[in-house]
Amino acid sequence: MDRKEALERVKPHLTEHRYVHTLGVRDTALKLAEKEDVEKDKVETAAIFHDYAKFRSKEEMRRIIEAENWNEQFITYGDELLHAPAGAYLVEKEVGIKDEEILSAIFWHTTGKVDMSPMEKIIFLADYIEPNRKFPGVEETREEAEKDMDCAIKMALRNTITFLLKKNQPVFPETLFAYNHLTLNTNG
Amino acid sequence: MDRKEALERVKPHLTEHRYVHTLGVRDTALKLAEKEDVEKDKVETAAIFHDYAKFRSKEEMRRIIEAENWNEQFITYGDELLHAPAGAYLVEKEVGIKDEEILSAIFWHTTGKVDMSPMEKIIFLADYIEPNRKFPGVEETREEAEKDMDCAIKMALRNTITFLLKKNQPVFPETLFAYNHLTLNTNG
Repeated sequence: MDRKEALERVKPHLTEHRYVHTLGVRDTALKLAEKEDVEKDKVETAAIFHDYAKFRSKEEMRRIIEAENWNEQFITYGDELLHAPAGAYLVEKEVGIKDEEILSAIFWHTTGKVDMSPMEKIIFLADYIEPNRKFPGVEETREEAEKDMDCAIKMALRNTITFLLKKNQPVFPETLFAYNHLTLNTNG
Repeated sequence: MDRKEALERVKPHLTEHRYVHTLGVRDTALKLAEKEDVEKDKVETAAIFHDYAKFRSKEEMRRIIEAENWNEQFITYGDELLHAPAGAYLVEKEVGIKDEEILSAIFWHTTGKVDMSPMEKIIFLADYIEPNRKFPGVEETREEAEKDMDCAIKMALRNTITFLLKKNQPVFPETLFAYNHLTLNTNG
């Protein structure tokens, strides 16, 4: 599927705001991909479709996660987590993308996980730092992303966990595991 | 063992500062115990001995945790965690306290855990809020402890995790699990 077709396929599923975000993730992901050993066209496809399920009903997304027997924590740890795994499922079933690298990058783009592949890292980080994102700590993470992707991901995970704690919300365990793993295994 | 003998047994193992802290934990634990269905003399013993291993060498404490095949995360997640499980071991072997409720309260007093017993909760919280403790958030936690022990423990866990994140340190997974469990199962 070429870029034009991919954008045409995703656009009806997004709000204007979310479509602009998606273009930002696409551009940022391609920039991050320059330094990594990844197929650029796959990165672009994953970025374009990463929020494909964002506006599906929570009921539909929960049904998918239950039917696939995926980690039930995607359901119990807050509705914001549903669209990533549900998106991976729907992009495969409705759009026909079967590539596991792309689907896995969509699946983990919100929570992160331990030992992410380069493609997973790029989509996770691009989603966090794309130019339309505005929240405390994002500029610092953008700057770090130009120097060291793992350290930037660690900062993003740390900011996310801190944000959830401030709001008295539960923290998806794999997100903490990813932070811990990077903290115990990287410098800076 | 009566109170006097317990204090005499623990004193040589602590600095003056830590002994004063221990007396604060004892007083606070007994106050917290008033509202709970626990044996007060056991609470007092657990409080008096909770930091028994605080000044042992890291090597000795690591050897104990390895030899007992306890969770290796007690070793990899920061030296501050060693003295709680090592203390439970040494209090049994050297002081002869065999009571599992007391030993478990000592074992988990630094990290917390999911589904703590009343005794474990009292020692964990008393250690955090005793009057000599001075750090951001402690006064708020003290006030909450008078109203709702579970909510106060959740605040203590949340503050601890936030503090570790700020310092770029890894977070003992069971500490997050305990926070998540209380967040998903309590109000306030």
